[in-house]
Amino acid sequence: MRFASAGAALFFAAAVSEASAFVPQSSVAFASTSSRTSFGVSSFASKPGPCSEQNRRSAVVSNIQMSAYSVGIVGATGAVGKELIQCLEKSSFPTSSLRIFGSERSAGKEVNTKFGKVTVERFAVAKARECDVIFLAVSGDFALEHAPAISAPGGAVVIDNSSAFRYMENIPLIVPEINGHKTKGARLIANPNCTTAIGLMALWPLHKLFKLKRVIMSTYQAASGAGQPGMDELWEGTKAVVNGECAVAKNSVFAHPLPFNLIPHIDKFQENGYTKEEMKVTWETRKICDLPADFPVSCTAVRIPTSRAHSETIIVETELPVDIDAARKALEEAPGVKLVDDPSSLKYPMPLTATGQYDVEVGRLRKSLVFGDYGLEFFVSGDQLLRGAALNAVLVAEEMAKNGALEESKAVVA
Amino acid sequence: MRFASAGAALFFAAAVSEASAFVPQSSVAFASTSSRTSFGVSSFASKPGPCSEQNRRSAVVSNIQMSAYSVGIVGATGAVGKELIQCLEKSSFPTSSLRIFGSERSAGKEVNTKFGKVTVERFAVAKARECDVIFLAVSGDFALEHAPAISAPGGAVVIDNSSAFRYMENIPLIVPEINGHKTKGARLIANPNCTTAIGLMALWPLHKLFKLKRVIMSTYQAASGAGQPGMDELWEGTKAVVNGECAVAKNSVFAHPLPFNLIPHIDKFQENGYTKEEMKVTWETRKICDLPADFPVSCTAVRIPTSRAHSETIIVETELPVDIDAARKALEEAPGVKLVDDPSSLKYPMPLTATGQYDVEVGRLRKSLVFGDYGLEFFVSGDQLLRGAALNAVLVAEEMAKNGALEESKAVVA
Repeated sequence: MRFASAGAALFFAAAVSEASAFVPQSSVAFASTSSRTSFGVSSFASKPGPCSEQNRRSAVVSNIQMSAYSVGIVGATGAVGKELIQCLEKSSFPTSSLRIFGSERSAGKEVNTKFGKVTVERFAVAKARECDVIFLAVSGDFALEHAPAISAPGGAVVIDNSSAFRYMENIPLIVPEINGHKTKGARLIANPNCTTAIGLMALWPLHKLFKLKRVIMSTYQAASGAGQPGMDELWEGTKAVVNGECAVAKNSVFAHPLPFNLIPHIDKFQENGYTKEEMKVTWETRKICDLPADFPVSCTAVRIPTSRAHSETIIVETELPVDIDAARKALEEAPGVKLVDDPSSLKYPMPLTATGQYDVEVGRLRKSLVFGDYGLEFFVSGDQLLRGAALNAVLVAEEMAKNGALEESKAVVA
Repeated sequence: MRFASAGAALFFAAAVSEASAFVPQSSVAFASTSSRTSFGVSSFASKPGPCSEQNRRSAVVSNIQMSAYSVGIVGATGAVGKELIQCLEKSSFPTSSLRIFGSERSAGKEVNTKFGKVTVERFAVAKARECDVIFLAVSGDFALEHAPAISAPGGAVVIDNSSAFRYMENIPLIVPEINGHKTKGARLIANPNCTTAIGLMALWPLHKLFKLKRVIMSTYQAASGAGQPGMDELWEGTKAVVNGECAVAKNSVFAHPLPFNLIPHIDKFQENGYTKEEMKVTWETRKICDLPADFPVSCTAVRIPTSRAHSETIIVETELPVDIDAARKALEEAPGVKLVDDPSSLKYPMPLTATGQYDVEVGRLRKSLVFGDYGLEFFVSGDQLLRGAALNAVLVAEEMAKNGALEESKAVVA
């Protein structure tokens, strides 16, 4: 998805100089005009927020009075954008109003939401800056071009779903349950890669217990990683094959036909033989978990013919000896995790059960045959569009409302 | 597949005492009556034999005069059995005649083969013993009950596709390209687990170069691992879902619906949290590659909605520093392997291309980010019914014809 260019500020010019797509234009600075009413949030959960109302241990926080915020979504018609609206509707994030920005083609369409009927507006930086929070569910190029201007002082806090800003030193890359505190003082937040976010839900509690030494991941990624067109191509292609219209499905979204096949290739190949998708897991795990720059994480990313939940085998070597019971307890108590690990009753993580759920399923937990007392192996399955994208983004906003980061951002005037 | 009981010898009673299904009955000993004519085998390849005529570097061996052998297949109507007939037809293994044994229900049916029209005979140990070579494509219980009697001196050499005998100390477990020499003097050979056989095609050449220290595998296994009923359940279930007959497919072969899902559970769970399928990879890799009894190999076995090719991510730590070019060359030259590793032209192993091929596709080869100079990561895809079963079994027979093991076995009289 690529929108027409609009005004972009020079605010982040230095930070994005590595990206050729960013063309600084005129400096824009509007004071936000959105409503900021006081809002009682008695149901506002502490970790990871009431957005995750399904299968969750809720933790109700005190009746603090909190501002309400005007929210904007750019790219609300895509697979992630649609989920963003739903997550926001289910969340107790104090949304005072919702605006939806799209391309010229989408402008004028009406979307029914819990916050009222919303007419899609043609995107413009100035309009986006009028919101308190902007969720970007658009391409990295678009984000690179416009996020700096939208989030320049006096504008909106931007939570960007693309990979454009994830690896920049001064941009926080956030999984709220892990490093939510790093949102404080930030006006542009990067939402992590779906595979990384899903895996980290299980890795983080285990890291706290046993200190990770090495992480090895193999993924089973769903078609939804390529958005709605990816899901459609899998569905239509499968239908054509089983109904005898063709022996092998057609493909245009994926590099090869996906029905009854798998493709060990997601995103571009890098010089070291890994794909960018695989390197994202390495880079983002290091950054989010505050691990050394050379911390050993490797991934093989494989697309398989499933719809919208990613699964992963994860093998870790640890610094401290592992205790399976302690690991199990930590996972049971971890926010955002559902321990699904009872082989005797055929319970383990699967796309079939993880799809549509906020929590990431973790199971098949066992001491590693390869790393002995210093290793664990397990399996995770999580909804790619939820924890892997929209849910995590809304949880970031919840976290920023809770820890005062949004209030602080409002105090900054251009 | 479970046949009616027939006479079984006590020959292997000690070896199979761990298996409750084996009920020794009367001792049977027939001299083989099969034809053993002299046979010119000018096209008989040295490694791994002419059976693998597709995509293969052929190596023609001298015009030795070799006997021809009468062959029997038990369980020829199953998915593996059908492939056994085809592999045998394409092979230059000197087959003088083919007999097919089945249950009472199958008996009398006719099967057209390159060796003539074959009428399925009701299985009986005495009849199977009349052959020189018997391929068993039946259950472990059936194999346990009858293989010892069939292969008792004076009977047939048995190549068993089940897991019944694989872990017994005196039974060779063979991948011909790796340890074919261990067939000499044996009358009962175990054919390895499909996942192991496919992975080892790539692991063995790398082990010879860099000496393996640790092996970590995650699998992407096809429905064919559960035979024709597994493939049918995936196909029919997928059809029902995409045609709107149901939201989730029915299941009876697999523990859960497989269409648009995956199942991290193949074979029975063990006390250590691994499944038996996963432990097979550990046990069989150690045995076939002659590695120490505690050599670290771990596997996570996952069923995915593909038809009949298994894929695997494999990560190895090595004793010696790796050299990618040397690794690539070794894989290129390895019999039974096809190096498919050209990301720039979107070439990597996939079920779509590996299905129906004799060679195991290996690609995505790269230095491991986790083990540095002492590690490699790669991806393999191989036909589960061919290298994972039927092809390997026929290659075992070829190897035994070539190295004189079959001739020697004929010299043994009860």
